[in-house]
Amino acid sequence: MKLETSASGVYPIAPTPFHEDGRIDFASIDRLSDFYTEIGATGMTVLGVLGEAPKLDGAEALEVAARFVKRAPKLPVIVGVTSAGFAAMRTLASAAMDAGAAGVMIAPPNTLRTDDQIVTYYAQAADAIGSDTPFCIQDYPLNYSVVMSPTVLKRIITDNPSCVMVKHEDWPGLEKITTLRKWEADGALRHVSILCGNNGLFLDFEIERGADGAMTGYPFADMLVDLINLARSGQRDAAHDLFDLHLPLLKYEQQPGVGLSARKYILARRGLISSPAQRKPAGAFTEAARSEVDYLLSRIARSDKRGACNPLKI
Amino acid sequence: MKLETSASGVYPIAPTPFHEDGRIDFASIDRLSDFYTEIGATGMTVLGVLGEAPKLDGAEALEVAARFVKRAPKLPVIVGVTSAGFAAMRTLASAAMDAGAAGVMIAPPNTLRTDDQIVTYYAQAADAIGSDTPFCIQDYPLNYSVVMSPTVLKRIITDNPSCVMVKHEDWPGLEKITTLRKWEADGALRHVSILCGNNGLFLDFEIERGADGAMTGYPFADMLVDLINLARSGQRDAAHDLFDLHLPLLKYEQQPGVGLSARKYILARRGLISSPAQRKPAGAFTEAARSEVDYLLSRIARSDKRGACNPLKI
Amino acid sequence: MKLETSASGVYPIAPTPFHEDGRIDFASIDRLSDFYTEIGATGMTVLGVLGEAPKLDGAEALEVAARFVKRAPKLPVIVGVTSAGFAAMRTLASAAMDAGAAGVMIAPPNTLRTDDQIVTYYAQAADAIGSDTPFCIQDYPLNYSVVMSPTVLKRIITDNPSCVMVKHEDWPGLEKITTLRKWEADGALRHVSILCGNNGLFLDFEIERGADGAMTGYPFADMLVDLINLARSGQRDAAHDLFDLHLPLLKYEQQPGVGLSARKYILARRGLISSPAQRKPAGAFTEAARSEVDYLLSRIARSDKRGACNPLKI
Amino acid sequence: MKLETSASGVYPIAPTPFHEDGRIDFASIDRLSDFYTEIGATGMTVLGVLGEAPKLDGAEALEVAARFVKRAPKLPVIVGVTSAGFAAMRTLASAAMDAGAAGVMIAPPNTLRTDDQIVTYYAQAADAIGSDTPFCIQDYPLNYSVVMSPTVLKRIITDNPSCVMVKHEDWPGLEKITTLRKWEADGALRHVSILCGNNGLFLDFEIERGADGAMTGYPFADMLVDLINLARSGQRDAAHDLFDLHLPLLKYEQQPGVGLSARKYILARRGLISSPAQRKPAGAFTEAARSEVDYLLSRIARSDKRGACNPLKI
Repeated sequence: MKLETSASGVYPIAPTPFHEDGRIDFASIDRLSDFYTEIGATGMTVLGVLGEAPKLDGAEALEVAARFVKRAPKLPVIVGVTSAGFAAMRTLASAAMDAGAAGVMIAPPNTLRTDDQIVTYYAQAADAIGSDTPFCIQDYPLNYSVVMSPTVLKRIITDNPSCVMVKHEDWPGLEKITTLRKWEADGALRHVSILCGNNGLFLDFEIERGADGAMTGYPFADMLVDLINLARSGQRDAAHDLFDLHLPLLKYEQQPGVGLSARKYILARRGLISSPAQRKPAGAFTEAARSEVDYLLSRIARSDKRGACNPLKI
Repeated sequence: MKLETSASGVYPIAPTPFHEDGRIDFASIDRLSDFYTEIGATGMTVLGVLGEAPKLDGAEALEVAARFVKRAPKLPVIVGVTSAGFAAMRTLASAAMDAGAAGVMIAPPNTLRTDDQIVTYYAQAADAIGSDTPFCIQDYPLNYSVVMSPTVLKRIITDNPSCVMVKHEDWPGLEKITTLRKWEADGALRHVSILCGNNGLFLDFEIERGADGAMTGYPFADMLVDLINLARSGQRDAAHDLFDLHLPLLKYEQQPGVGLSARKYILARRGLISSPAQRKPAGAFTEAARSEVDYLLSRIARSDKRGACNPLKI
Repeated sequence: MKLETSASGVYPIAPTPFHEDGRIDFASIDRLSDFYTEIGATGMTVLGVLGEAPKLDGAEALEVAARFVKRAPKLPVIVGVTSAGFAAMRTLASAAMDAGAAGVMIAPPNTLRTDDQIVTYYAQAADAIGSDTPFCIQDYPLNYSVVMSPTVLKRIITDNPSCVMVKHEDWPGLEKITTLRKWEADGALRHVSILCGNNGLFLDFEIERGADGAMTGYPFADMLVDLINLARSGQRDAAHDLFDLHLPLLKYEQQPGVGLSARKYILARRGLISSPAQRKPAGAFTEAARSEVDYLLSRIARSDKRGACNPLKI
Repeated sequence: MKLETSASGVYPIAPTPFHEDGRIDFASIDRLSDFYTEIGATGMTVLGVLGEAPKLDGAEALEVAARFVKRAPKLPVIVGVTSAGFAAMRTLASAAMDAGAAGVMIAPPNTLRTDDQIVTYYAQAADAIGSDTPFCIQDYPLNYSVVMSPTVLKRIITDNPSCVMVKHEDWPGLEKITTLRKWEADGALRHVSILCGNNGLFLDFEIERGADGAMTGYPFADMLVDLINLARSGQRDAAHDLFDLHLPLLKYEQQPGVGLSARKYILARRGLISSPAQRKPAGAFTEAARSEVDYLLSRIARSDKRGACNPLKI
């Protein structure tokens, strides 16, 4: 199963679950995989920004990816292979594909500046991983400080047949989606899948602008699936009602550091992972922050029973 | 009237209204000033990031500031004096104070890196504007790329008696407010006013963490006043209900470029300025974006009649 | 006298001389102007990065520019008009041209990233200053963090007829000069003047690659004139001998902060300005640094009597 | 053999030699190791910025490090372990120390900003590699965009007993060396070794300011050894004469991209590696650049016969 340009729907960004003592929690990987499969996710992304990938050594990273792949045989799995060098990228991409991954995701190094530098980088990366490995461009300037104009994305997509997807998390980015889709309609650009990240913060309008779905780590991935189904079936108001209900928590989770802590905390409250533990260095999660997340969950629970997850004993 | 450390409530960031042909629209300045006074704003900030200050030359900037000051005699007016050099900063600060401003706001140049560089910069700035000019630190790393730890803020506040306020728009920033207020409670730091920016996106919890109010350009400044009154009177749920109702639009406006266009568009729809015109170079505002803003306003109008402002003929 | 694409030779970057008490030292401006004229400089640049422009208010900046223009009637004077906004840029450019400047120099704001952003910025700037004001692009990524590929320079030059010069201080930049000159030879790009900055650190080879001259603040501008004459007359070894003799000092002066202090110190030792004083905030110049500069001068003096300037009483 | 705070002299940054087809050239590793030993180098650094480390996968990196260690048993070898995550850093550091390395070198991620962030990062890194692994701080703001004030270095050195060395390549940095050495003289800071990088561009004065030696990749490491010996024996003028003779080439090599190409080219001309080949993506080295390097070598050869190395057949 290879990642294709027709990919759509919800690709949750899976966290890497740990035990309290720092060991990888494989049973929770299985539970997450089952959950994503059951709720109708159409794929999965592992070892992304919020997968604590830098806290895994090479062997562990592979073990994690392989376990997700094995447990969710129906879901194409995208593996983050962003690396400081092409040698490490090639090694991880090759091993991940051998383990059954459907494709890889590559973010640019934050030292790139000019259009040509960005285009050249992706050409070199595509060459490093091999033309038979489908890849997804991660376009996330807020995190990587690399700004890709629509023209740059067009050049990368056109130059590299193995580019099949853009993870769109530019900010602001609504017009970028419109531009890319207009080029596609005009025959100036081939179709690639556009899945939206940036914690889903603009997913309400991104879908309306032509995005194919979501790739983000919000712990209510089932809500994201519902949202996209509502939008696709033309129930605009209902889609926005659902989105707006969760927006206070989506927004809260967008905070770097706090965000991952809140996500793991909520996944643990939902029983989807055994522990909210992070490997060192862990993001902070103060008593005040936890109480704020609890409050936000209780507010969601007024209209969506998924918010009423069990209190966590910690 | 000088800006004081006891400042609290809502200091709207006033846009600079223009006619379609680019002239400054002084009548709209008056209307805005009257509006801010009537709704219970406790101050006002002019020539901030979203006041299109870089599109005004020195003389125009002063005219704009003076007009706001004159029309809103009860409101302390803060004037943004962030400049590429201390000479220009001194000149503008001095003229603004002569024109009746209550204080000035200073953002750091985006080339500062170390703690010492930041502390030194504010010492030099305080010296440039004179010790009798109260100033507000603008702590906005997302825009200025300068990260101030709580310790750095403490050093600036302690070193410079004329520092009376922090415009807090760090991100994430809730723990920073808690830290500063804890130091204050412990006697380790004198009190300064903390007003929150970052488009009010975290205002719901910022107030609960100890902030004194808001300084942001959201076009429903009257909602911000209500929100703070609800929070202060202990009506937590009602405060969050109001905030959450407006959050989809607050979030939409946080987009750079689009944000200012949306704000001026809404202010024009509300009749508070004559035209949404910006001076060149103007931020984009496509048909699609305008339609999205209209939709968000209609959704607000379901529960808050302020959302039902007149359609704009443009 | 308007700046033209045929400009070549040495355009010294003039410092702004101050008295010890911070007043502008107009007599030293006259002395510098006379010196540049006498040694065969072909132009002059004022209010550049090292002209302490940010320490001058608008009126002072104009006075300084006008004084240089008046005293050196044979030399085209380029005025730095880099500003935080187009309104201030327009005002200063217009006043400078009225005062007799030959053209202006514009550096990009350090927030620009994509090719399109840079091209758009220069289009807006050219529009702001008016099509009859010749301008020079300052291409200095080390200082401004904006990287312009040759393609971007080509677009700016092609789009804006009033662009007549590039101040080349990219690093590394030798291949960029070669590329631009090759395009010119191929008829793909019109000719513009290329003068080299970056403290002249690569001037030896830049001239050989096709640059038209130097625009830098090295305090031995007379050496730069000799160097270019030697290079033009085909005396390659002699040109490099002269360059290499001064390279240790050129390199020493490239240090930010220390560089300006060293320059003003040497100009004062040479009797070309009355005092090495800088306005606050002044760059550091420790006893150790001064002694190092003295030592470097004494080494130059072994082969070039210009190095044997008088010790300074300070 | 563990790296100690008493380290001094010349630690060449060893390139990673490749065959034309991209395989690691182990015979050239041996030749380089022998050369460094013979000329009186006191240590060696491998897998640094210019060691093409990102083009090696984990296993290859270890092989390269181990080969250098084995062939130069008298020289303490420092291994660059800068990584995107602490897990990879721990793995590489541990394996390198097992293979006989004397210590490791760690550069900060370019996202760090505040003093506290930098101090915290090094505490976490020291914890990751273990307290028995001596480490060297790489202080190179021009490359990593992280600015460490002397106070920050003091905090890191004081907090982490396993910190034994600073690779100093701040710019400007002479006063920083003076400050650190003054603190040491005053008893405010324990002694650590300071070796200078930044391509040796300020080595002439850095030694005089109190640095213990050089850690840089200049292909005439034997010249660096001579320079330090001259400086130590009080022959200031002779030291500067030697330095100034090589300065034009040192400066030329400081150019990013071109620098590595020039170094490998010269090492190949000197017969110290078999080929100047780089792994993809290789830095450019045009005909013009090679001719410039040849010219600079011929100029060195007029006074230092080392410059007269054999022309390379390529």
